[in-house]
Amino acid sequence: MPHEPDALVVGVDFGTLSGRAVVVRVRDGAELGTAVHEYRHGVIDRALPATGAQLPPDWALQVPADYVDVLRAAVPAAIADAGVDPADVIGVGTDFTACTMVPTTADGTPLCELPEFADNPHAYVKLWRHHAAQPQADRINALAARLGEKWLPRYGGLISSEWEFAKGLELLEGAPEVYAAMDRWVEAADWIVWRLTGTYVRNACTAGYKGILQDGQYPSREFLAELNPDFAGFVADKLDHPIGDLGDRAGGLSAEAAAWTGLREGIAVAVGNVDAHVTAPAAGAVEPGQMVAIMGTSTCHVMSGAELRDVPGMCGVVDGGIVPGLWGYEAGQSGVGDIFAWYTANQVPPVYHEQARERGLSVHELLSELAAEQAVGEHGLVVLDWHSGNRSVLVDHELSGLVLGLTLGTTAVDVYRALFEATAFGTRTIIDAFTDAGVPVTELVIAGGLLRNPLLMQIYADVVNLPLSVIGSEQGPALGSALHAAVAAGAHADIRAAAAAMGAATRAAYVPIPANVEGYERLFAEYHELHDHFGRGGNEVMRRLRGIRRAARAGREG
Amino acid sequence: MPHEPDALVVGVDFGTLSGRAVVVRVRDGAELGTAVHEYRHGVIDRALPATGAQLPPDWALQVPADYVDVLRAAVPAAIADAGVDPADVIGVGTDFTACTMVPTTADGTPLCELPEFADNPHAYVKLWRHHAAQPQADRINALAARLGEKWLPRYGGLISSEWEFAKGLELLEGAPEVYAAMDRWVEAADWIVWRLTGTYVRNACTAGYKGILQDGQYPSREFLAELNPDFAGFVADKLDHPIGDLGDRAGGLSAEAAAWTGLREGIAVAVGNVDAHVTAPAAGAVEPGQMVAIMGTSTCHVMSGAELRDVPGMCGVVDGGIVPGLWGYEAGQSGVGDIFAWYTANQVPPVYHEQARERGLSVHELLSELAAEQAVGEHGLVVLDWHSGNRSVLVDHELSGLVLGLTLGTTAVDVYRALFEATAFGTRTIIDAFTDAGVPVTELVIAGGLLRNPLLMQIYADVVNLPLSVIGSEQGPALGSALHAAVAAGAHADIRAAAAAMGAATRAAYVPIPANVEGYERLFAEYHELHDHFGRGGNEVMRRLRGIRRAARAGREG
Repeated sequence: MPHEPDALVVGVDFGTLSGRAVVVRVRDGAELGTAVHEYRHGVIDRALPATGAQLPPDWALQVPADYVDVLRAAVPAAIADAGVDPADVIGVGTDFTACTMVPTTADGTPLCELPEFADNPHAYVKLWRHHAAQPQADRINALAARLGEKWLPRYGGLISSEWEFAKGLELLEGAPEVYAAMDRWVEAADWIVWRLTGTYVRNACTAGYKGILQDGQYPSREFLAELNPDFAGFVADKLDHPIGDLGDRAGGLSAEAAAWTGLREGIAVAVGNVDAHVTAPAAGAVEPGQMVAIMGTSTCHVMSGAELRDVPGMCGVVDGGIVPGLWGYEAGQSGVGDIFAWYTANQVPPVYHEQARERGLSVHELLSELAAEQAVGEHGLVVLDWHSGNRSVLVDHELSGLVLGLTLGTTAVDVYRALFEATAFGTRTIIDAFTDAGVPVTELVIAGGLLRNPLLMQIYADVVNLPLSVIGSEQGPALGSALHAAVAAGAHADIRAAAAAMGAATRAAYVPIPANVEGYERLFAEYHELHDHFGRGGNEVMRRLRGIRRAARAGREG
Repeated sequence: MPHEPDALVVGVDFGTLSGRAVVVRVRDGAELGTAVHEYRHGVIDRALPATGAQLPPDWALQVPADYVDVLRAAVPAAIADAGVDPADVIGVGTDFTACTMVPTTADGTPLCELPEFADNPHAYVKLWRHHAAQPQADRINALAARLGEKWLPRYGGLISSEWEFAKGLELLEGAPEVYAAMDRWVEAADWIVWRLTGTYVRNACTAGYKGILQDGQYPSREFLAELNPDFAGFVADKLDHPIGDLGDRAGGLSAEAAAWTGLREGIAVAVGNVDAHVTAPAAGAVEPGQMVAIMGTSTCHVMSGAELRDVPGMCGVVDGGIVPGLWGYEAGQSGVGDIFAWYTANQVPPVYHEQARERGLSVHELLSELAAEQAVGEHGLVVLDWHSGNRSVLVDHELSGLVLGLTLGTTAVDVYRALFEATAFGTRTIIDAFTDAGVPVTELVIAGGLLRNPLLMQIYADVVNLPLSVIGSEQGPALGSALHAAVAAGAHADIRAAAAAMGAATRAAYVPIPANVEGYERLFAEYHELHDHFGRGGNEVMRRLRGIRRAARAGREG
């Protein structure tokens, strides 16, 4: 290997609320230092900071300058934390939330930074969890199904409102002047690499999973024109761009980015990537059947498979989407930690907040401790975990959360535990869909911040009835990005080799408890029946309520 | 009329948490003084005070001595508040929650006051909202339906777990030694009159509505034997007793009770009655079509009708059950104010508690004020108001609450408003059942503590699409009891005459707003579909969850 024994790489993980940098030793994956920087504007989902204008429901925006601040703040801080010489760093890798989209000019300037668009919400970054493009997604899906588009089964039969085409069509139809001014419709994953190198390279992962690039082709001009005549040139004019493979070198670190980060100009910068997908090799999970669930605000499930299969409701399957030579499968749950956080902020009475404060615990820690005392089924509740819609397997962001079984004896602890269980049932539903489609799941590997909750982990083990492995790193995505940086810098031959040297997981960290497995089998049957009733057309009340809500708000404002 | 122009009566209303006495002028119903006394033991639903022993779910007990304390404390305090001479009081009337049952010895001593039974929860008062006898109610209903018992349609086709027979069978099967020691199974409404007069008189109202006394007959010995051979003598041995009509004189005030209350020995004490039923004349609502909804912890709907009809899911129809000469119909919602109270105690985060405290409001007042700013449908939620089961029209206490439409943007205010609406939909469902059965409802008269919430009242007017009248008194049941006291004392010829002289209501206090009526029509359609799906066998998940919960708790304790 053409590198020094103690060569270092930096991985930077851009999450929903903050960015994290980690300094990693190429030889063995040792994490030497880390730092986090929170986005100044966080998630903009109520009012635009520039003007205070209210946003409609389901909107979620970000400010791109917040991402650059992570490079300026977190990277030097991580180097300082590691106490190493920045000159020893031979490469930088990044990963991002997806599908998070930036509308830019030809040189990559975000449109929201142009004075004429600062007050237009469509000119901002549309975060992955921006869900206002569901009407556009519905039309894309209906048309694709009617025309029998051959790419549709690659996405479980449904394109998400979170992705490039639905958000692009929403932009055209919601703000045609912004759409007209936009030269490039750029994944944030690629935008940050563009900032680091001065070069725009479109990464194969998001192009495949979020951009409907399959077998080298996008949806046709005719297809786009039928959606909206003005959308015909979307691919040719705004989207199409040379593709970089995962682990490739996108370019060298620019002088400007070297100044931001304190790293050497010209070192390798890896092609952009997605938080979930880089985490699989960080957990050493690069073989078929090893599903990695990255559990944070949402959960993303990634797994490689030897063969191409159509899994209903999966997010997508992309050739080499995770590891070269295998089909990369992706699925997901659009709300997990987000739901728990919403719950503690909005539905937990003062007594628990006070008790947590007195005991020096977070409310989550206290509720988890109390919920752990319960037997399976004791709370009498079943929840549908659709507070943020359903990504897999229903791919419908018009769905919403449901709590059933409430009594005058129900406590906040009861509902909290039922929310945990509901997200586990959601993962179980995804695993069943893969197994039923001939892509068997043999191991569930957990990564992400939620693995620190032992009650949640035990519930998952009991519900899916599989031993749970947990990733060895507390910062899986950042480590995964570092691993790709090492490959881009030529320090490891490929991602598999880098995963073997730098990745790690603890096997069977949680083992199913037979009595609980049995109890959850009964509760899962109830979840499953409600899931299909409300999610597959038995009663479309959730969709109708969204419509009623939109009309009520429009009527009040109009 | 054989009474002085300024003759007075005292009405005492025994509620779920407290008793209230009111001093009323016979001539015009003027309320001169009032006082409330809270039950020392409140509702016992978690642990038995005597031993600390945990109660199973769905239990709700009371201590009979707490009722006597109301006579000792609240009656003298009301006299003092009125500043009148107690010698001017010519009669006492009472009303009670129902069906609330006291197991006693032959002299009326409650079994829980015997040392040998002080630690047995079955020896205590089983409050109306004790819901643990559902399995017994199910068996009664199944058998009655199979045998085509002719009394069954008089109760909407279903006997409630709250009533005398289900609770009596539960007592036999749960504690045969208590059942064996019990000489009388007494409505608390009659037990308190027994305490006041020294004489046991069984009132026609509860005997008809809760005791299955129809056309002078109870269910047969053969029927009871088939439920359980040891239950064959239930009516003959424990229940049957001479009946007193509403407004009749049960007896004279005993020396002991005169000492407790400070009133004259020997004055008239009216036959016992039920809180809801006495309220109808207090609101002047004694004609067919005038439905009175007494809205408190639960809601009871009472209405007189000229003809006998079978209304599916009504609680019951009793000849002269409210007003002599008319059929008295009753229906109800087992949780209303209880649900709002549970919600503010268990699901409202600190920010609202703090804001309410700062502004000197109750949490209810604050949430109502904030909820009033919303347009109909804006919260995107539909709730099933079954947290305490469903009395009418489903008569099933195994049902439970449901919240549907939750998102990460849902606030506690949103859910609070949706709970208000759900209870209004529940009332609408009852009104529709009466109208569909040929007992049309032409006016809805609101009584009870919840009438003080203007948002709630407007929602009810909009949902039922009828002008709302509100009772003129803040203490409708106590006034209604006073009115019956006046009849028992011979001061008015009958209940209609007393209602004309002493009752009052404000007509059309809330008028439907057409745009809201239209909006709620859509939301009610959603409620209705969920109501029938979960309440009429589409998905019996709520019943199954109760079973799972019971088994889980038993397993943990066993």
